[in-house]
Amino acid sequence: MTPPYARVALIGLGLIASSIAHAMRRAGMTSHIAGHARSAETRAVAAEIGFCDSVHETAAEAVAGADLVILCVPVGAMGDVAAEIGPHLAAGATLSDVGSVKRAVISAVGPHLPEGVHFIPAHPIAGTENSGPRSGFAELFDGRWCLMTPVTDSDGHALERYMAFWHALGAEVDVMGADHHDLVLAVTSHAPHLIAYTMVGVADDLRRVTDSEVIKYSAAGFRDFTRIAASDPTMWRDVFLNNRDATLEILGRFTEELFALQRAIRTGDGDLLHDYFTRTRAIRRGIIEAGQDTDAPDFGRAHRPRG
Amino acid sequence: MTPPYARVALIGLGLIASSIAHAMRRAGMTSHIAGHARSAETRAVAAEIGFCDSVHETAAEAVAGADLVILCVPVGAMGDVAAEIGPHLAAGATLSDVGSVKRAVISAVGPHLPEGVHFIPAHPIAGTENSGPRSGFAELFDGRWCLMTPVTDSDGHALERYMAFWHALGAEVDVMGADHHDLVLAVTSHAPHLIAYTMVGVADDLRRVTDSEVIKYSAAGFRDFTRIAASDPTMWRDVFLNNRDATLEILGRFTEELFALQRAIRTGDGDLLHDYFTRTRAIRRGIIEAGQDTDAPDFGRAHRPRG
Repeated sequence: MTPPYARVALIGLGLIASSIAHAMRRAGMTSHIAGHARSAETRAVAAEIGFCDSVHETAAEAVAGADLVILCVPVGAMGDVAAEIGPHLAAGATLSDVGSVKRAVISAVGPHLPEGVHFIPAHPIAGTENSGPRSGFAELFDGRWCLMTPVTDSDGHALERYMAFWHALGAEVDVMGADHHDLVLAVTSHAPHLIAYTMVGVADDLRRVTDSEVIKYSAAGFRDFTRIAASDPTMWRDVFLNNRDATLEILGRFTEELFALQRAIRTGDGDLLHDYFTRTRAIRRGIIEAGQDTDAPDFGRAHRPRG
Repeated sequence: MTPPYARVALIGLGLIASSIAHAMRRAGMTSHIAGHARSAETRAVAAEIGFCDSVHETAAEAVAGADLVILCVPVGAMGDVAAEIGPHLAAGATLSDVGSVKRAVISAVGPHLPEGVHFIPAHPIAGTENSGPRSGFAELFDGRWCLMTPVTDSDGHALERYMAFWHALGAEVDVMGADHHDLVLAVTSHAPHLIAYTMVGVADDLRRVTDSEVIKYSAAGFRDFTRIAASDPTMWRDVFLNNRDATLEILGRFTEELFALQRAIRTGDGDLLHDYFTRTRAIRRGIIEAGQDTDAPDFGRAHRPRG
């Protein structure tokens, strides 16, 4: 296949950037991949693994001559990076990002872009609990969705070209407004992460139940929460600070509902509980039918014999 | 190996009972396995699969002559079953159960047992989101914990014999008091399940985000909650109604902590959030090191290409 972009710059070299690079190679793209990370250690690891053709000490150097630049840094760092690279972007280049929040990224990045650069904010809905340049793999985006949230003056041709790029990486592609994106993600990602962090924090902090007991008996449900509560702290701090209103709205609804169920437990209203627990089964079936999760019991975790 | 029990009666033939039967056979036990389920359909499926040597229409028939009887019914049904089988239990038999709540089961079952029957309440901390006689498999208990919560007059020899039985099924075995068990499980299982049910219920109930969006974009975290929120509604209704105080205590702590994090989001306290999210990573490492979860990214879910 003809490479859709001749030179792609990845700014930030963690899980998402390294997976993009691996997926580009798997798709047969021969684009030059230029990378930059702020940390010298990350740059050294990226150079060692070799998923970039060139690793640069500054973001400005990395983006020089690139026709596609993807910002893969935490949401809170997007504005500073955009300010640094803005003057160095080639005319006609596409600038995108992979942030989990879109309205705040548009506000932070937009003002720094020169005329003639196509800004296409996007969000690949994929990830694992691991982070860093060693955690990437080519299959990460397979069958997952990448949402484009174009700004009003996004160029139609540039958008189509970038959508084709993500399709080639294995993803399904959809387009929606930034504000709606932020609300949808508050439901499917941001609120669940905060709730998981909270539950794990509570378990860690109890006096009457030891950490050792929590760990040993975690297979009864708790361990499902610990995976997303092991996600990158900087990334998630920035998500919550930058999608504050939508996250707090969903958490408000969550608390209201939790109180109603607590009240049903206190008053012994078994019918309400049974009806509620029956209704929630349907969503899991929908997720499995849509290919967004495995139907193997326990997520298909390997059951391993007593060591 | 010599069968530790000559005749084992399983009352209730769902995920746990069928897994016990499969694991007994894998361990080479030649005990006669007698089974009973209230539903004729479940009995027919059990007979078809053949994990019982005999399937009985009543619990009283199933327990006749058994030297081990295990109650594998929802916690709320334990008392009625015990009342029915009490007069039919053989002298010297061991009676146990697999309920996720222990104090309430002890109160409900204890009064119905004749002299000379050894009552050993227990709880294998293992399961999947699936239920019914077809969902069992021999490896379910491998490396998982089975907690014994003996009552004050539990016979030491009978306890050792029953612990050896669970060890042969693949489980690690531990002993603790019933009240402490109920508190530990409120943390590691009951509160997480209620929280997961609540989050899935909220997502299902929003007007501004469609179910289709929730499903498509669930890989961003939400889908991890949907597995345990797809668990058996009757079982879980009974757990909450029968471990009310401990569950409400933990949910109270959870809400307090959630409010503190919501406040940090509202006031923009990034340091508090970052510290909190860093601390919670350690527990996941502990769980993986203890062999209670896989260290494969995404629980080792298979990544499948776009269909």
